[in-house]
Amino acid sequence: MAGEKEEVVLLSFWCSPFAMKARIALDEKGVPHEIREENLTEKSHLLLTMNPVHKKVPVLIHNGKPICESSLIVEYVDEVWTHEPQLLPSDPYLRAQARFWADLIDKKVFSTAWSVWFVKGGPKEGAKEELMETLKLLESELGEKAYFCGERFGYLDLSFFPYYLWIRQLEKTIETGLEVVIEAELPKLEGWMKRCMLRESVSASLPDLDKLRDYIRQLRKKKIDTQA
Amino acid sequence: MAGEKEEVVLLSFWCSPFAMKARIALDEKGVPHEIREENLTEKSHLLLTMNPVHKKVPVLIHNGKPICESSLIVEYVDEVWTHEPQLLPSDPYLRAQARFWADLIDKKVFSTAWSVWFVKGGPKEGAKEELMETLKLLESELGEKAYFCGERFGYLDLSFFPYYLWIRQLEKTIETGLEVVIEAELPKLEGWMKRCMLRESVSASLPDLDKLRDYIRQLRKKKIDTQA
Repeated sequence: MAGEKEEVVLLSFWCSPFAMKARIALDEKGVPHEIREENLTEKSHLLLTMNPVHKKVPVLIHNGKPICESSLIVEYVDEVWTHEPQLLPSDPYLRAQARFWADLIDKKVFSTAWSVWFVKGGPKEGAKEELMETLKLLESELGEKAYFCGERFGYLDLSFFPYYLWIRQLEKTIETGLEVVIEAELPKLEGWMKRCMLRESVSASLPDLDKLRDYIRQLRKKKIDTQA
Repeated sequence: MAGEKEEVVLLSFWCSPFAMKARIALDEKGVPHEIREENLTEKSHLLLTMNPVHKKVPVLIHNGKPICESSLIVEYVDEVWTHEPQLLPSDPYLRAQARFWADLIDKKVFSTAWSVWFVKGGPKEGAKEELMETLKLLESELGEKAYFCGERFGYLDLSFFPYYLWIRQLEKTIETGLEVVIEAELPKLEGWMKRCMLRESVSASLPDLDKLRDYIRQLRKKKIDTQA
């Protein structure tokens, strides 16, 4: 790719955990790119054209062609810009393992978080337990390693960090008693989160946390007002 | 891998559309493997050990190591046995596109089908329309091509075929009036389904359709009996 004029644009939203995954991946790989902030209540024509099926951020537009869905953007970035650091492991078995956990995170973490913090009258029955169960699986998968794939920050770290950040801020905004449980039962994830936050790629895409908590407060109000 | 003694076992269930994806992938690549049929009402110790998180088929056990989740199995098979036919396109953009549609199929097709055919008193409101909307997107993505990626059967075809087969058999078993709509509005998918069925890899993993309809009838009764 060296020497070629590349146009890399990311349609993003400042506190979207999905967009954050894509931003960290681009920064880790050192791919120069432009971030275009979307207004989610009045989506741009560009977003609607580039992601007509889901109409969601993030969308990576590479030389005019769109790639949608955050996990697929991360894989694409790793496949197109093949230089180090490699985000996914090169061994097929380790790749499958990383994809397995990323898939579990995508399917379970955020949707369960929703049923803990965005439900009128408090968490749905069993939701806190279900979330803790998934987080404990991830705590155990991390084990004594610095990052999920070993000594190096990679695909699974950047796939999980934005959700974990949200979970911690959700609890700080809407207290359900989970903070104490998380701190007591997930010491390894807590240490990992702090390590991740020291990385330049992560801190560069980190939203202002006060602003995020305000956003969470407003979003919750809006979601709860429409619940029966 | 030539010369090495490979042990490839697939934990399967005879009519599982997820297992069928893995079986077609193995057959397309010509990877010798053993199929072990699971009893889903009394899962084997091997299945519970190999897939402790989801406890579901299919699981590919390659030289003793498990790979879970059907789409991840297909990618793994394509990455380990790198000979032709290649199931995923080699171009990163086309790979991202194939993964995008496979992801949409995984997320929307089967779950929506559930709310059409497995609901007491008939389809949930809007479920038939939602399913048709997704199927029409796929009809349009197929367009005039023989297969989703062009002239060659590949990843997206084997990711979608088992679900489409199920949908057609669900409607033949539990009539909701969708058969006429499907035949009228999805002529390209119908032609594609027939083309897929002629392939050896597909016909070898095709369940007995009479038996499948019996299974659907029993499964529906069981699901409906537990609904409020």
